[in-house]
Amino acid sequence: MERLVVVGGDAAGMSAASQARRLKGPAELEIVAFERSHFTSYSACGIPYWIGGGVPERDDLIARTPEEHRARGIDLRMRTEVVELDVAGHRVRSRDLESGDETWTEYDRLVLATGARPVRPRMPGIDAAGVHGVQTLDDGQALLETLERTPGRRAVVVGAGYIGVEMAEALVDRDYEVTVLHRGEQPMATLDPDMGTLVHRAMNGMGIRTVAGAEVTAVRTDAEGRASAVVTADGRTYPADVVVLGIGVEPRTELARAAGLPLGDSGGLLTDLSMRVRGHADIWAGGDCVEVLDLVAGRTRHIPLGTHANKHGQVIGSGVGGGYATFPGVVGTAVSKVCDLEIARTGLREKDALAVGLRFVTATIVSTNTAGYYPGAAGMTVKMLAERRTGRLLGVQIVGGAGAAKRVDVAAVALTAGMTVEQVVALDLGYAPPFSPVWDPVLVAARKAASAVRSAGH
Amino acid sequence: MERLVVVGGDAAGMSAASQARRLKGPAELEIVAFERSHFTSYSACGIPYWIGGGVPERDDLIARTPEEHRARGIDLRMRTEVVELDVAGHRVRSRDLESGDETWTEYDRLVLATGARPVRPRMPGIDAAGVHGVQTLDDGQALLETLERTPGRRAVVVGAGYIGVEMAEALVDRDYEVTVLHRGEQPMATLDPDMGTLVHRAMNGMGIRTVAGAEVTAVRTDAEGRASAVVTADGRTYPADVVVLGIGVEPRTELARAAGLPLGDSGGLLTDLSMRVRGHADIWAGGDCVEVLDLVAGRTRHIPLGTHANKHGQVIGSGVGGGYATFPGVVGTAVSKVCDLEIARTGLREKDALAVGLRFVTATIVSTNTAGYYPGAAGMTVKMLAERRTGRLLGVQIVGGAGAAKRVDVAAVALTAGMTVEQVVALDLGYAPPFSPVWDPVLVAARKAASAVRSAGH
Repeated sequence: MERLVVVGGDAAGMSAASQARRLKGPAELEIVAFERSHFTSYSACGIPYWIGGGVPERDDLIARTPEEHRARGIDLRMRTEVVELDVAGHRVRSRDLESGDETWTEYDRLVLATGARPVRPRMPGIDAAGVHGVQTLDDGQALLETLERTPGRRAVVVGAGYIGVEMAEALVDRDYEVTVLHRGEQPMATLDPDMGTLVHRAMNGMGIRTVAGAEVTAVRTDAEGRASAVVTADGRTYPADVVVLGIGVEPRTELARAAGLPLGDSGGLLTDLSMRVRGHADIWAGGDCVEVLDLVAGRTRHIPLGTHANKHGQVIGSGVGGGYATFPGVVGTAVSKVCDLEIARTGLREKDALAVGLRFVTATIVSTNTAGYYPGAAGMTVKMLAERRTGRLLGVQIVGGAGAAKRVDVAAVALTAGMTVEQVVALDLGYAPPFSPVWDPVLVAARKAASAVRSAGH
Repeated sequence: MERLVVVGGDAAGMSAASQARRLKGPAELEIVAFERSHFTSYSACGIPYWIGGGVPERDDLIARTPEEHRARGIDLRMRTEVVELDVAGHRVRSRDLESGDETWTEYDRLVLATGARPVRPRMPGIDAAGVHGVQTLDDGQALLETLERTPGRRAVVVGAGYIGVEMAEALVDRDYEVTVLHRGEQPMATLDPDMGTLVHRAMNGMGIRTVAGAEVTAVRTDAEGRASAVVTADGRTYPADVVVLGIGVEPRTELARAAGLPLGDSGGLLTDLSMRVRGHADIWAGGDCVEVLDLVAGRTRHIPLGTHANKHGQVIGSGVGGGYATFPGVVGTAVSKVCDLEIARTGLREKDALAVGLRFVTATIVSTNTAGYYPGAAGMTVKMLAERRTGRLLGVQIVGGAGAAKRVDVAAVALTAGMTVEQVVALDLGYAPPFSPVWDPVLVAARKAASAVRSAGH
């Protein structure tokens, strides 16, 4: 009987294990999975809503418990960390985090799904009590304990990407006075600055203080060694009863690096289209520890996102189980919200397009989410990038009221299909007054972009 | 100087006139437009929301008044109906509906945008006072007057398509006791019956009585000749203080038919891709009076919809003004809602696919509009059709909570691009807990459809 070893028990790892188990029963395939934390198969993306109180219980975020996985014939070793990968010997060394005991386990097939970790810049105080990342349920649990233990109501969030912005809102919901320190010109640097400024305004509107160009240099601690303030390069001090790190995550690939597996520029594992690690027929990798092919930019990038991790798991499990599936790549779609403002992007920003050598035009329009006369109509701003020579759609950013975020999916499909903005203008999108103006905002943006392409004259 | 004559002053006609004016000033092109009603450039799709009270004023539905058009150099003749088209003589005969005076007007270029009219089956009482279509603002105004004048609170809606369902809800909002009589097995026959049943339940849930298989044979009238009840073929009588016809519309093309212009099977004008009437280099047609190419079915159909009319107008105006644009066709996307239930379709239903000779598999899944744990998560049912041999996407129907309707746009773009359901599974759609489960419901349906395609074995 063959043995599959899975390293990492969240979305990618356990989806892979489950899908492999669907295709091959326990008589054909033994499955051993290692997870260092206390939890399996949970929604890390849901943590801000649990912290904010909208999602009442931690366990609401758990799709499948260790017991449920075990009931499906997966030998799951919780609180057990894989500390060495011996590729030549086809084995992994694991350590029981409670007892410290170490064991070697051989594999026929291996899945690496080690995830990502929040970036923790090296600086004084960064490891103090009261400084929290929010990448895992364990992280979320620790943060909640700090919030419950600490009477003060001042929170500093470092970073204004998706996690930073969502955590800022969560902390406002918990009646914190929130300051967000971010390095860029505008929060939400996953958008171009002209679109980020709309997010900036919404954050300020809900009472969040934002500080642009802030370079954090230290976390100051009190007599008990707990975080008490954040210090920036310009010498300013921001008092903090709790500090949340939202400056992004990096792939957790030390194990792979030490074993000589191929890593990309962002430190993520490199795989082929079937999610096999390049050059290794019996090792697959997926989720937040890999780089994915950006179909628009034509290169691999590190895009940690639960939806990709789940797809990876499905593809890996199919491959391991003797089926066939591929993950062709992504176009860089991401959606988020702050208060009632929905935020979305797909494809390339201006700086992404410049970085890969594309010449482009841009078009920005303001419209509404429903017919303008429909009760509760809210504004929507759409920015579109198109290749200057060909009119090919390159990217879309949307900020606006209800229905703004998921409208980006239209652009995601059009990008995948390689459509020109002229083709986008002609798309047959759903229209009725409660859902859209008679010209959908995405079509209005495409019309303006197509006109810009024609005017540009190559 | 050339003269453009436009017949019909709503979406298609006035969009065409406006776009032509943008490209050619009054010194180059004279524009004469005829409109039989009291209004121009209004949202007919918004009428149910005005009747229901959500949209406070009739004028909210008007995008551009006659005066605004005239200020842009369009010679607009209101309450003037074109009663004859002399193609050989390049002229139209019009009648002033107030004075009865008739005039011949010559044209160099002609745009036919005569719209559609509600189907009025020939039966006793159908023209009685209190029986209303809701296709034009004049229709809506007349209905409102009936509602204000009539103390009774019983309404019968004949037909349960988009207009029927929307009008039923509008009348409930005005505290009417509403009965919807429809011929088919389920309301909303634009969906397959298994999906229509979900709409049925929602309508009943909001207190609307629905009667399936109802063949209306007469409208009974009172002593003053006003509608008092609707009679069906099985001899039943449904008392009614007001009767609303929602059994669809038909293209208003008598003028074109009499002039020998080409009409399709549904009686709509046939055009080329630049919206020129086939075989006539100087006549264009658009909006509810034309048939459009259904790109999935591979034939023309009559799909009266404001969003198409506006695109037609844009394309026609570009052509008339010496520019270039085309309308490649539609995939049959339509969205609607009843109470909080959103309803959407694109592509082919089962019977459409059968009718054009396609062999297919279907997949139906139930999921949620947001992450299941997110506060307020609502159900969503997605049905997908795929070609059995190739796995090509053929159609999608969605019924569910907030965000269900516009999700169909993803399928509309995928249909336009000719994607297989396997390609749909891999689409990079926006994911965050407030907007979608980690597997978007459309992707879940595609996964099931792809599996059905594989199992079908061609």
